Amino acid sequence: MLIPLSGSYLKLKPRRECCTLQVPVWAPQTSKYLNRIYMVQSRSFGSSAINIPRNPSFAKLNSDDISYFRSIIGDKNVIEDEDRLSAANVDWMGKYKGSSQLLLLPKSSEEVSKILHYCNSRKLAVVPQGGNTGLVGGSVPVHDEVIINLGLMDKVVSFDKINGILVCEAGCILENLNSFLENEGFIMPLDLGAKGSCQIGGNVSTNAGGLRFIRYGSLHGTVLGLEVVLANGTVLDMLGTLRKNNTGYDLKHLFIGSEGSLGIVTKVSILTPPKLISTNHAFLACQDFISCQKLLLGAKRALGEVLSAFEFMDSHAMDLVLSHLDGVRSPLPASLYNFYVLIETNGSDESYDKTKLEAFLLRSMEEGLILDGVISQDINQSSSFWRIREGISEASVKLGAVYKYDLSLPLNNLYDIVEEMRARLGEAAKVIGYGHLGDGNLHLNIMTSRYDDDVLAQIEPYVYEWTSKHKGSISAEHGLGLMKANEIHYSKSPETVQLMVDMKKLLDPNGILNPYKVLPQSFFN
Amino acid sequence: MLIPLSGSYLKLKPRRECCTLQVPVWAPQTSKYLNRIYMVQSRSFGSSAINIPRNPSFAKLNSDDISYFRSIIGDKNVIEDEDRLSAANVDWMGKYKGSSQLLLLPKSSEEVSKILHYCNSRKLAVVPQGGNTGLVGGSVPVHDEVIINLGLMDKVVSFDKINGILVCEAGCILENLNSFLENEGFIMPLDLGAKGSCQIGGNVSTNAGGLRFIRYGSLHGTVLGLEVVLANGTVLDMLGTLRKNNTGYDLKHLFIGSEGSLGIVTKVSILTPPKLISTNHAFLACQDFISCQKLLLGAKRALGEVLSAFEFMDSHAMDLVLSHLDGVRSPLPASLYNFYVLIETNGSDESYDKTKLEAFLLRSMEEGLILDGVISQDINQSSSFWRIREGISEASVKLGAVYKYDLSLPLNNLYDIVEEMRARLGEAAKVIGYGHLGDGNLHLNIMTSRYDDDVLAQIEPYVYEWTSKHKGSISAEHGLGLMKANEIHYSKSPETVQLMVDMKKLLDPNGILNPYKVLPQSFFN
Repeated sequence: MLIPLSGSYLKLKPRRECCTLQVPVWAPQTSKYLNRIYMVQSRSFGSSAINIPRNPSFAKLNSDDISYFRSIIGDKNVIEDEDRLSAANVDWMGKYKGSSQLLLLPKSSEEVSKILHYCNSRKLAVVPQGGNTGLVGGSVPVHDEVIINLGLMDKVVSFDKINGILVCEAGCILENLNSFLENEGFIMPLDLGAKGSCQIGGNVSTNAGGLRFIRYGSLHGTVLGLEVVLANGTVLDMLGTLRKNNTGYDLKHLFIGSEGSLGIVTKVSILTPPKLISTNHAFLACQDFISCQKLLLGAKRALGEVLSAFEFMDSHAMDLVLSHLDGVRSPLPASLYNFYVLIETNGSDESYDKTKLEAFLLRSMEEGLILDGVISQDINQSSSFWRIREGISEASVKLGAVYKYDLSLPLNNLYDIVEEMRARLGEAAKVIGYGHLGDGNLHLNIMTSRYDDDVLAQIEPYVYEWTSKHKGSISAEHGLGLMKANEIHYSKSPETVQLMVDMKKLLDPNGILNPYKVLPQSFFN
Repeated sequence: MLIPLSGSYLKLKPRRECCTLQVPVWAPQTSKYLNRIYMVQSRSFGSSAINIPRNPSFAKLNSDDISYFRSIIGDKNVIEDEDRLSAANVDWMGKYKGSSQLLLLPKSSEEVSKILHYCNSRKLAVVPQGGNTGLVGGSVPVHDEVIINLGLMDKVVSFDKINGILVCEAGCILENLNSFLENEGFIMPLDLGAKGSCQIGGNVSTNAGGLRFIRYGSLHGTVLGLEVVLANGTVLDMLGTLRKNNTGYDLKHLFIGSEGSLGIVTKVSILTPPKLISTNHAFLACQDFISCQKLLLGAKRALGEVLSAFEFMDSHAMDLVLSHLDGVRSPLPASLYNFYVLIETNGSDESYDKTKLEAFLLRSMEEGLILDGVISQDINQSSSFWRIREGISEASVKLGAVYKYDLSLPLNNLYDIVEEMRARLGEAAKVIGYGHLGDGNLHLNIMTSRYDDDVLAQIEPYVYEWTSKHKGSISAEHGLGLMKANEIHYSKSPETVQLMVDMKKLLDPNGILNPYKVLPQSFFN
């Protein structure tokens, strides 16, 4: 559905008439599009490469267990219903599917503690689950692990308006937290496409990066404190609300990005930046990847402290979104250009920020770095820019199967792997490249009609070897999960992996927390 | 010595004539004052409260050990000279003094590895040392620990000009790194008074905060990678240079702030921000602490993305600096006001930033939050502002003995403890309060002519209990070291302390790394 035209873009007009200009004739739909968990129907599931035998040391669930869980969290939060279990057993891409027979919905840290204490003593394996929006199979069971979903723990505990410090339960949905904060004059320091479903506990557990990373940095910098329940049920209170606290080892960092394998995050204290009044967006077209790179370097210098996002996508990604998502249209001719860039600035002075952005864009246009571009004139236009960028994941799954790679790479090599994979796979697959260029983070999606071991063998380990050779990371922000647990050596030294294993054994000696994920299973047999 | 007048300040002139104005008649000395390690002469040393018996499980150094060390790092870097040992055995405040008989100066990670491997097998305790500028007795021996000073490991390994990523050895002096970066158009994300002596390895090991924290945040956010040598000599290569890398537990964070008790940091990879061309400074006087608070909140909103420092000091701190440091004078009448604030902005547009700052200051003056103030007109004036703020530590030790407390507190309670201590101690001591108000970080210095157990008993545990009661941290940025190892329970839960102990035992089973520090010794007897 197209929504009637609400206004026209500011056209970028170079002082020298060196570029064609875009006159938009349409307007986007509102930003409140639905990005809840997509229903998964009759997809082919994961590949044989991740078939891992069930660890026989784990107990099998019995009726006594279920009775016990009912006694501590109440009948209605102990879910055995087949439909609900079915949704919780599978990830949103339909790539990973477990066979859990039990979903638990605790309402408090105390309940989580009792559940884990019991599971640990019984050697019942568990998988912690938030919004189940992960991309590496980390949030669904591999076999019959008990699913502990934190969705009912969704309360804001406190908000300190003077210092911008939010304390909340782990099950709060990111978008809800951001809406709450906007009313108080603040924003969350992270934002991502799955914001309507993902939970802050899951964000912390996967060290989510996302769209504001270039401005506000990693969760290791913004998370001030955590409450975590350990495998044995111990509640670890590290829920500080101070910006600075150098009293010994800062153990909360162990749990940021450990994907629920060392403990379950139950509460989060996070520093939130003030909501600045001025936000500007530009959607730009570039001839080649080197122009995107140069544009980024220029933006870092010229926009400096107000630059808040620098996203890119190739024309293949753009085509995919336009072809597969209803109501999405490009503000620039979609077939003319090879690359598109979305720039966001966020500052405290409307007219100054806008002038600064326009001056930078015009300069870049004169230099030939930008071929065409528009600056948004209102929030609807801005939302439409983001809708394109954030819609890529959603559009990718429409083709059937999607192999997603999330790589950190040095800027000058970043796009080469996309072209190599495209050449390597030929007609067998559609290959797109996009991501957070400002952070050196490429998303490489490879789509086929169904999951296929032959295609997979063409991709892996090639893509990991290539990344390792170019000193990149095989997971910039998605984590390792089930998908890349065995590939950890491409990005971590053997000594570091060994220390991770030691940590895992120290914190979770029975290995009940999110088994088969993050680390190669061979360490635990 | 006074240096001739180089220019006059911009006088803050309110639109309504509600305040007196300051016409400065002097000029500061250059910023290149000496802040190398102060020579310590005939001071009284530490109190009986930190008398800890030597752990008998540690071996005593013998001539074979010394021969071995000579064989691996060369004769000239094995120091037994009494004068050099004497300087390395004592902290710069003259508060903590050990009796080490050996100082080792390795030149590479490999040498550090061989030293630790040997010490671990021999159960020889060691103390890692950087610039020895710590404030909690963390960097000097308690008994006869072998001192491993990283000062010869002072090379820049690489600098990526595109992404601003610096890789260097741990012994690089902070100020040297900053000078190196300034030539490349970047700056270090941290700055502190001891920059002329402190080393980046020590900064990382103590999770140093400092003057740019409000803008660039914690080292947990800016350190991208570390190389660390573990107690058994294992070199842990976590020296990534990527902004995003979610491949398993991010173990480098264990070593940031663990004060050399889990491993010795040998190399650091750090994200450095671009050097922005426009820096402005204002030095302001306020009537009371509540005005300082309100000024901070206003600055956060109005200066937003360009605010880079917000420091405060009380008139007692100002008096101390003016009385005890040569060539330092105040740009504002020193006896008229109760509080002083130093604001720094850092942005990409000279005239815009200045206009913005001036508008904010004039508005604040009209509101009565600022009683008087000056804006610096050149780098010398800016340096003179910083000289006052950074000179407080140096001036404090001139009185004889200084008890330093470094507290994180909620803003509205932050200054109360200074007044309480002043009332509590009366004539027995001089009490000053200053610090990084923008981060909620108070430095409380209590000076007496000599270290005295009776005075100490008046201060501790009172100050820790007070801080704990007000949900603060007993160490915002200095660390625990020897001084506060036994006080950890004021800021960490018992479960968290236990997990720290477990980590220490896992990583350093013989306990050779910086013993007696960070954690209560009772856990290791």
